[in-house]
Amino acid sequence: MSEPTSGRSDHHRLLAGLQASQRSRIDSFIVMDVMRAAAAREAAGDRVIHMEVGQPATPAPKAARRALAARLETDGLGYSLALGIDALRERIAAHYQITYGVSVAPERVVVTTGSSGGFLLAFLAAFDAGDAVALPQPGYPCYRHILSALGQPSVALPTGPDNRFMPTAAAITEAARARADLRGVLIASPANPTGTMLSRERLAEVTTACRDNGLWFISDEIYHGLAYGPAVAQAQTALAHSPDAIVINSFSKYYSMTGWRVGWMIVPDRLVRTVERLQQNLFICAPVASQVAALGAFEAGEELEANRLVYERNRDVLLAELPKAGLATFAPADGAFYLYCDVRHLTDDSRAFAARMLAETGVAATPGIDFDPVNGRFFLRFSYAGATADMVEAAHRLTTWARTRRG
Amino acid sequence: MSEPTSGRSDHHRLLAGLQASQRSRIDSFIVMDVMRAAAAREAAGDRVIHMEVGQPATPAPKAARRALAARLETDGLGYSLALGIDALRERIAAHYQITYGVSVAPERVVVTTGSSGGFLLAFLAAFDAGDAVALPQPGYPCYRHILSALGQPSVALPTGPDNRFMPTAAAITEAARARADLRGVLIASPANPTGTMLSRERLAEVTTACRDNGLWFISDEIYHGLAYGPAVAQAQTALAHSPDAIVINSFSKYYSMTGWRVGWMIVPDRLVRTVERLQQNLFICAPVASQVAALGAFEAGEELEANRLVYERNRDVLLAELPKAGLATFAPADGAFYLYCDVRHLTDDSRAFAARMLAETGVAATPGIDFDPVNGRFFLRFSYAGATADMVEAAHRLTTWARTRRG
Repeated sequence: MSEPTSGRSDHHRLLAGLQASQRSRIDSFIVMDVMRAAAAREAAGDRVIHMEVGQPATPAPKAARRALAARLETDGLGYSLALGIDALRERIAAHYQITYGVSVAPERVVVTTGSSGGFLLAFLAAFDAGDAVALPQPGYPCYRHILSALGQPSVALPTGPDNRFMPTAAAITEAARARADLRGVLIASPANPTGTMLSRERLAEVTTACRDNGLWFISDEIYHGLAYGPAVAQAQTALAHSPDAIVINSFSKYYSMTGWRVGWMIVPDRLVRTVERLQQNLFICAPVASQVAALGAFEAGEELEANRLVYERNRDVLLAELPKAGLATFAPADGAFYLYCDVRHLTDDSRAFAARMLAETGVAATPGIDFDPVNGRFFLRFSYAGATADMVEAAHRLTTWARTRRG
Repeated sequence: MSEPTSGRSDHHRLLAGLQASQRSRIDSFIVMDVMRAAAAREAAGDRVIHMEVGQPATPAPKAARRALAARLETDGLGYSLALGIDALRERIAAHYQITYGVSVAPERVVVTTGSSGGFLLAFLAAFDAGDAVALPQPGYPCYRHILSALGQPSVALPTGPDNRFMPTAAAITEAARARADLRGVLIASPANPTGTMLSRERLAEVTTACRDNGLWFISDEIYHGLAYGPAVAQAQTALAHSPDAIVINSFSKYYSMTGWRVGWMIVPDRLVRTVERLQQNLFICAPVASQVAALGAFEAGEELEANRLVYERNRDVLLAELPKAGLATFAPADGAFYLYCDVRHLTDDSRAFAARMLAETGVAATPGIDFDPVNGRFFLRFSYAGATADMVEAAHRLTTWARTRRG
């Protein structure tokens, strides 16, 4: 123990009292607050159409539930090894060969507690406190908030209609030159909240820019598998371009297993043991019942493709019908299950607008400020992961509402 | 963005290369490495007796598995609200009234991703980087390692046979005077690795010492429900003494649900919203299938008491038989399912000794250095959460081995 200090510090400590830390002063994940408001409306008897949350309306695929049911009777489902169940790690590695023609050793696969667990492990493994990470704006807000809780600044990479709401390699290089503390870049493609994608060429340019500037590249591939039309052919893992990329994925979206909290990372060889130690200490392992179900989900190809076709139809419905409600300007939505809608002709306060829309129409959407503290006030994100009938009903309610407002 | 800096920093960044962070240089959770060594032996055809891992040999209770099976067919098991499923939060709150006669509002209950998730949330919510936390030595190693990854020093509170391996109020006050950066104390009772407990009087003194010195008190109550003999009557939650205590618990031990990764915290009112925001961003929610099973586990009283009686019998077997193997000096094990055994007459390198014991007898135990970097080299931790026949067999193997070594 160090030398005693004067009583002043004790006194200061007592006066300060037991309060929440500074680092916990992060914003809430607003979509979860909207979920709560929507749930309150439902409890009051209203029928809410949930377009606020990025969650499939479908349950975990049958094959996943069946795999777990079969084990529930006979298996302890105790701790797995920290990096995950071997059979699942092997199946995930095979997924890269099957889907992208990219060879990944099972030893590089880490089964995580959702993609959330993957971000925490990646940030702790690759960065120290003070290391800045560049993030596209708009983007998934939790990146920024988790980094902040871990003592890391984030740097916005501005995007917009001119670049399909995706950062350019030039913007990454510029950020690296401007900030000596920049150590990494994190990009999701398809993206949340815009649904837009990096083309193969631009993905290659981005990985090159990261390498040339000595930056870790973290590729959030959680919406892989969810692309529509010509975009389907563009989907590509960052691993095709860089063995140094840290890839994060999840069973939550394409595999329709949100609440199960199971995902995965692919990490470079030299980070495997680091991530294993962090997982041992911070998580022990990902939930084992969920790991068992996830292994089953790989057998659910037909069911998952059927889900994707529903999203594609939903997207078509909304792109055709929402303009009648005065909602006509969207980011070019290649994938995921989101439309990011420019509503600046209607409001400059998307949070108030979304609250009013929920109150007056029962349609829940997420205000853009969840994703972009600067321009998000001009945007709403609609998730179309629900049933097609709900999309039709939502468009109808919003069209009626628009007429009322004009009337 | 800030002003451009000279090219020197870029150059430095490139030379440094993409390497693991400093903060990720934490020790491994050695028990998980022992598990791996034991699994390798089993794969080679040997029968290993697992006394290394703090994990019941029993599966999740039937009522828990039944509760999940009933929902698997019909329920999406999508995201829950961040703080957990309401019915589970209410049942956990009721648990405090039923078990301890202490009133806890359901609003203060946070369902977490195991106790591991609880530690991460508690440390981020209550402390900033640089804030020191005092920990009993020996103790659960992940406390120290998680704190380290979050930029927080830990301060050892030495314990030993004179104080039942539990820190005294005087030691806490002394640590607070010695270190102005001390902001909290974390104690588990019953403790890991010793199984010892704080009496009601000493728990009251500890909470008072924390209050008087302006320190957060985090009470790890994960082994509650697992006490034996007269110690059963001593079990008490820290909430009985302090509404400011942060209590962490789990379904892993008493409820026999390790791999499910579900636990809970009770936090003071003024931390609820802070912890909710952290959970939203870092975890979304605890795994929902596990939350459903956990709610069922509260109906499993008889099965869980039967498990406890097995542990009590196992403890009796080991305390009677291990002395024949030359293992006769233990911390006074009131609860949990561990014996912390002083082996200084046999080794001053518990890691090497445990490895040799595993290799020569097939009995896996955890070296004390996992729990105490100073004196742990003189100790082994035996977990007796397995079957009674395994305890008998382990004692037999170790007794034979002791004879061989003497011979």
